[in-house]
Amino acid sequence: MINFETSREHYRHWKLHIDGEIASLILDVQEDAPLRPGYKLKLNSYDLGVDIELADAVQRLRFEHPEVRAVVLQSGKPNVFCAGANIFMLGSSGHAFKVNFCKFTNETRLAIEDASRSSGQHYIAACNGTTAGGGYELALACDEIILVDDGNSAISLPETALLGVLPGTGGLTRLVDKRKVRRDRADVFCTLAEGLRGQRALEWGLVDRLAPRSRFNEAVRERARERASTVTAPKGPGIRLSSVDPELRGDKACYRYVTLDVDRARRTATLSVIGPDPGQPRTLDGIHAAGADYWALRAFREIDHALLHLRFNEPEIGVVILKTQGHLEQALRVDRSLSEFQEDWLVREILLFIKRTLKRLDLTSRTIFALIEPGSCFAGTLLELALAADRSYALDQDDVRVAVSQLNGGSFPMSNGLSRLQTRFLANPERTRDILAKPGLVSAREAEQAGLVTVAVDELDYEDHIRVAVEERASLSPDALTGMEANLRFAGPETMETKIFGRLSAWQNWIFTRPNAVGASGALTLYGKPDRPAFDWNRT
Amino acid sequence: MINFETSREHYRHWKLHIDGEIASLILDVQEDAPLRPGYKLKLNSYDLGVDIELADAVQRLRFEHPEVRAVVLQSGKPNVFCAGANIFMLGSSGHAFKVNFCKFTNETRLAIEDASRSSGQHYIAACNGTTAGGGYELALACDEIILVDDGNSAISLPETALLGVLPGTGGLTRLVDKRKVRRDRADVFCTLAEGLRGQRALEWGLVDRLAPRSRFNEAVRERARERASTVTAPKGPGIRLSSVDPELRGDKACYRYVTLDVDRARRTATLSVIGPDPGQPRTLDGIHAAGADYWALRAFREIDHALLHLRFNEPEIGVVILKTQGHLEQALRVDRSLSEFQEDWLVREILLFIKRTLKRLDLTSRTIFALIEPGSCFAGTLLELALAADRSYALDQDDVRVAVSQLNGGSFPMSNGLSRLQTRFLANPERTRDILAKPGLVSAREAEQAGLVTVAVDELDYEDHIRVAVEERASLSPDALTGMEANLRFAGPETMETKIFGRLSAWQNWIFTRPNAVGASGALTLYGKPDRPAFDWNRT
Repeated sequence: MINFETSREHYRHWKLHIDGEIASLILDVQEDAPLRPGYKLKLNSYDLGVDIELADAVQRLRFEHPEVRAVVLQSGKPNVFCAGANIFMLGSSGHAFKVNFCKFTNETRLAIEDASRSSGQHYIAACNGTTAGGGYELALACDEIILVDDGNSAISLPETALLGVLPGTGGLTRLVDKRKVRRDRADVFCTLAEGLRGQRALEWGLVDRLAPRSRFNEAVRERARERASTVTAPKGPGIRLSSVDPELRGDKACYRYVTLDVDRARRTATLSVIGPDPGQPRTLDGIHAAGADYWALRAFREIDHALLHLRFNEPEIGVVILKTQGHLEQALRVDRSLSEFQEDWLVREILLFIKRTLKRLDLTSRTIFALIEPGSCFAGTLLELALAADRSYALDQDDVRVAVSQLNGGSFPMSNGLSRLQTRFLANPERTRDILAKPGLVSAREAEQAGLVTVAVDELDYEDHIRVAVEERASLSPDALTGMEANLRFAGPETMETKIFGRLSAWQNWIFTRPNAVGASGALTLYGKPDRPAFDWNRT
Repeated sequence: MINFETSREHYRHWKLHIDGEIASLILDVQEDAPLRPGYKLKLNSYDLGVDIELADAVQRLRFEHPEVRAVVLQSGKPNVFCAGANIFMLGSSGHAFKVNFCKFTNETRLAIEDASRSSGQHYIAACNGTTAGGGYELALACDEIILVDDGNSAISLPETALLGVLPGTGGLTRLVDKRKVRRDRADVFCTLAEGLRGQRALEWGLVDRLAPRSRFNEAVRERARERASTVTAPKGPGIRLSSVDPELRGDKACYRYVTLDVDRARRTATLSVIGPDPGQPRTLDGIHAAGADYWALRAFREIDHALLHLRFNEPEIGVVILKTQGHLEQALRVDRSLSEFQEDWLVREILLFIKRTLKRLDLTSRTIFALIEPGSCFAGTLLELALAADRSYALDQDDVRVAVSQLNGGSFPMSNGLSRLQTRFLANPERTRDILAKPGLVSAREAEQAGLVTVAVDELDYEDHIRVAVEERASLSPDALTGMEANLRFAGPETMETKIFGRLSAWQNWIFTRPNAVGASGALTLYGKPDRPAFDWNRT
């Protein structure tokens, strides 16, 4: 059972120092503390445990230290920044784990970019030595890469040449789409196991700055100060992110507002979210005072945790049934507070966090059905859960209602840059406008007519209809469903983000199944052993 | 050895009738004429042989029958339009063949869309009965889908439910991106083995029109006439597309202007193109009189054929070395003619054909190195070959030159909608402008400085440099290279087209390797047999 909760006091691989507006996030991996036994985390290489801490640190910097405006991502070891994902960990992991590991690390890198773009916390990668594979991909996620110019330290993406796989954390996409490195140079670089150093790396646009070893730390500090000085919005004081502390009882994971209930025989899980109670604060002071206990933050942190738990710890669950329970009016009231105070740094961080959690849901490769039933409260922000679902079923009964709020109008963009309503009504953009123009409660039947739910089913048929739909879905090939959902969920424009999860990851997943990588004579399997890989030369 | 040449007289599965501005392209598959023995092409299902004829017909309609303005794609069999790709063919094919088969059929569907958009030949799918899987995908590639409304005839994408794979010919992407079908409805439709009929299919936007059986042919004709009447540009008379007639000598395929020379031991192939001779026509009449013998058309038809031959008949060749030979000035002169007469329908068709061939090169999953040497003529249109390459090497010598022409400015957009120069200089759009502002010859060194070639190598090192680069490349994992190239070649925007080849195909390729589809108990393997598939339920 992988635990996704941690906090600064518990970090084993990272140190976080804060000095006014500048934070130092120091990677100093404990070789002997892998997530599971069987490999050593040499040369600042990472596994999921290291990345869970990084994700936590990036998150805490936003909520707990909003005064920070520049983060120096640096190494605690001499002459090595980071050697990337640990190869022996990858080589000894199953396919589903590898894919989910890459997905999580990608989400963490995107969270770094989101912190920079949306929260004004700029990241500087201080590459003091070897920066290889996932190490360089980590640097690519930063706003700026400074490489030590010592005639020796190189950046590299050696995966293709050494391991027969792709850089798994967005590297290829960030090279040509984020940094816009010329494709033929990217081609040379990505097949050069030893990578590039100094001036050449700078000329090709692979790094932003060089500094000699003697002035390296000084140069990095200088850039951090310059970066910090460009950010001006006042923020703080921070709030403390308390633990979401799930209680595991048999096949249930119980949080304060969320329950994940696994039915192993049917290979389904029900994710239930309790909406806000009337006691939720309605003033900005009240929201700050509530902090991590504010429903909007707490509930979505619990959803986020439940999704990670599901991805890694419940691989056989094919269908997730989303339910909500509570008062529509209370849910809309919280949305009104979030709208009213959206200029406040904390409310903004909460909205951004909800955005990221909803993206995590979009990217979770399980079928998602939302059930809209008496007592449910799919309103505004919670309605996004139903809009993220592959299908939604509403019981066609007078007391079953859903509601849109102002927040459905673009507060939670998907990876494709559109709101879930815009993506849904790609054929009829005016419908999104019409729906947003009339906020408030609508019946199941009206919601069906408006296209907000897939189908409203009458009472007599409801139970059978849902049971059959879920059973049928759970019986289909999990691979075909993963591929199908990944294609249907992201209509419309593609972005660097969707390219990473759509194009790059799909190719990487394919390569991860191929004997040329993971077979007995595959390159990944044989890494570090004396034997050379034996390839099947057929090009596909 | 698969033969990609055919012509109207040799079609076994299609009939082409032309009646003024309206053509009927009739699918009437000969069950007993599969491309290779082992399966029967029942229910108008298709294999590569059927699609080679379709691609040929779509092409000939443009060049030989430019007067045609509407093409009715219909079935020659009662109650069945097309049952899609033949499952037993797929089930008994190797992975590389399946993937290349899907790629070719995708290119053919895109050629249909290109004929409509660029040449004013609108396609109408007349779905007179069962329209399943690839059959519906074929209809999706048309401008308009008319379905017979007889209470029985359904459209469907049953792949996920019945076969454990995805619709392989752009179906998912065209559903949500071209037709903009709502994602939850697409989700329902794509898991419904029996598909949808009549009114529901129309309401969901899956078809454009219904017609009762009694009025079906009439309704189709009527729409064809309406479509034809919207196109007004005068065109014709057509030219005859003669055979490109390759001569196969040992490991060589020799055409008039093109040679493909395979070095099996090194797993490389050299694709050499001879540039235009001074005798090429310079008047519009002369170009029309030359027709299929005009260098620009003939040479690129030969390249196109050589690429298909390489993809299907030479699967182990990992590196393609591109060379040209001829006079830069003559190549530029042909480009000037193409520019001067680009408003003429035939010249336009030639430019569009070159565009499609260059896209076929971009999408060929082999490493492509261009070698720019004394006597080579990478100028204008031929320079696109070097810009399409993963890398280009120029011998740094006085007599080695390349040249841009006006046609490099956007006459041959890639799948991403950008020119190859724009894609190359994504980081510096002004560089594309600068280069286009100064057409004419530049030396190898200048080309390197401008970024037009990857590297200019001096004479002493050249041979070793190239040998080592090719050997190193050919030694790497073919799968990792396929994935890497697919990611680095298409920087910048994504389009429906790049989504099909990037996102959709990558997922399909992955699914095609998975035991849940192709293992002994996989759904594709067991299709048509009494046993039910047994799935590994882990979600990835």
